[in-house]
Amino acid sequence: MSVLIVGSTALDSIKTSKAEKPRLLGGSASHAAVAASFFAPVRLIGVVGEDFPKRYVQLYRKHGLDLAGLQIKPGKTFHWAGEYEANMNRRRTLSTELGVFETFSPELPPAFRDTPFVLLANIAPALQSHVLDQMRRPKFVAADTMDLWLNIALKDLLSLLKRVDLFILNDGEAQQLVQEDNVIAALPKLHRLGPRYVIIKKGEHGSILSSPQGTFIAPAYPLKKLVDPTGAGDSFAGGLMGYLASAKGSVDANLRRAMVYGSVTASFCCEGFGLNRTTKITRAAIEARVKELEKLTKF
Amino acid sequence: MSVLIVGSTALDSIKTSKAEKPRLLGGSASHAAVAASFFAPVRLIGVVGEDFPKRYVQLYRKHGLDLAGLQIKPGKTFHWAGEYEANMNRRRTLSTELGVFETFSPELPPAFRDTPFVLLANIAPALQSHVLDQMRRPKFVAADTMDLWLNIALKDLLSLLKRVDLFILNDGEAQQLVQEDNVIAALPKLHRLGPRYVIIKKGEHGSILSSPQGTFIAPAYPLKKLVDPTGAGDSFAGGLMGYLASAKGSVDANLRRAMVYGSVTASFCCEGFGLNRTTKITRAAIEARVKELEKLTKF
Repeated sequence: MSVLIVGSTALDSIKTSKAEKPRLLGGSASHAAVAASFFAPVRLIGVVGEDFPKRYVQLYRKHGLDLAGLQIKPGKTFHWAGEYEANMNRRRTLSTELGVFETFSPELPPAFRDTPFVLLANIAPALQSHVLDQMRRPKFVAADTMDLWLNIALKDLLSLLKRVDLFILNDGEAQQLVQEDNVIAALPKLHRLGPRYVIIKKGEHGSILSSPQGTFIAPAYPLKKLVDPTGAGDSFAGGLMGYLASAKGSVDANLRRAMVYGSVTASFCCEGFGLNRTTKITRAAIEARVKELEKLTKF
Repeated sequence: MSVLIVGSTALDSIKTSKAEKPRLLGGSASHAAVAASFFAPVRLIGVVGEDFPKRYVQLYRKHGLDLAGLQIKPGKTFHWAGEYEANMNRRRTLSTELGVFETFSPELPPAFRDTPFVLLANIAPALQSHVLDQMRRPKFVAADTMDLWLNIALKDLLSLLKRVDLFILNDGEAQQLVQEDNVIAALPKLHRLGPRYVIIKKGEHGSILSSPQGTFIAPAYPLKKLVDPTGAGDSFAGGLMGYLASAKGSVDANLRRAMVYGSVTASFCCEGFGLNRTTKITRAAIEARVKELEKLTKF
């Protein structure tokens, strides 16, 4: 089955202690869509400016993304510049130029409205809701977010959460949203906001799922070297939703494995700048790391 | 088989945002020995002063510890006072009174010298080595440490590490010791210091084993509420070594499960001040949480 993915489609200029890479293909939707494309057909919703490099459109096409929902508007593509600390644990934003993203209103081509799986990747929660408004009874809806929206659009986010099946957020965001330092204690409070399924991401420490079927502690794939963690969370969500859309059986039966696939896809993302590594892997490379994770966690 | 455990036997005064508990039974050897006692006979090596409460000796006896190596010396028992921040992630030492610990020289009763499993719990590395000097060909030796010794007794620690099978340390200590931020990249560098087996503890995020048989990502038991994490690392090491000593088969075959048992024993430790919770559990309660962890991590 197909996955519809909405989010940011951007150019990222990234600086680490090792290198500086200008104007990489980035954005939550780009990372999530490429990650999902290893598993299922993907329909992308986003906006770029006239300066968006043709080679990036070609990269989208190479991954089989359906671009009927990608708007190309007069003006500049959303551009984010950021710098990571030496240990990659913290980053700071150097500049944000919204460009055409400032007036973005996601519009779904009629053929997209029946897509069974929907990933609302990180973007303003009002826009995530606007996408849901246009869908016809999707089978499964997941939403990601970021701390920015907790600060400036909390009301929109809370109203969105009543409409999604799965809410994906990181540990810091969970703490902020429900005022609870302990991740395990935060889970029931997050359910009370609406979603039946909650996943808290903990970066290199893996992630935790809370669902009607219980809790699952998902491992992260152990990486010796982190080149650039930008987009890892989006890749996790994309890989997870792509796997779910591709798997036979119920969401409940597949969600744990889907997290492992998401985790592995995210591990590749961290091994290169932007999408450089992710766009070069194959499904077989993902399967090999999933098998490895099985061995690494068996007791 | 038996486990010999050497380390500190102390009184801990602990302050959290919720409560303040003076003169609890504490110390690395106390925590490790009680944890190990659920699995195997334990021989304790330590020193206390004349002020050491009789009820704590009775507590040791209740757990079947062989106290032939516990010295009672004129003077005061080692006393540590510390305070945790509200989220329990950081603590600061309020006071340290070494007392009889200042001149402690661990002496093994002749009957202890053949103990097959040896846990050198956190204590000055020169004293850990002094215990090893008195042992006759132990089957398996594990050593724990703390950042203090990296700062003031690095040479002693490095010479100890050439003589131990398993080195247990936390992520911050690993980073400091081999100057490597990435835990996975730190592992081979730690092996080069001597030990065939290395375990890096990551608190609530579990632990990682590196061994000739490969890497194992061990989960932590998810706790809703942390009352007092003091001694959790010692309980982990004690539970692990107790399980190893009790299990049939090779260390290689049992080490992964031993880590899970250590992890579960440590989870109980965190649920009460000092040893308050650990001394009230049963082996059956440990088994139940191990089963639960199996379910929580299966995919």
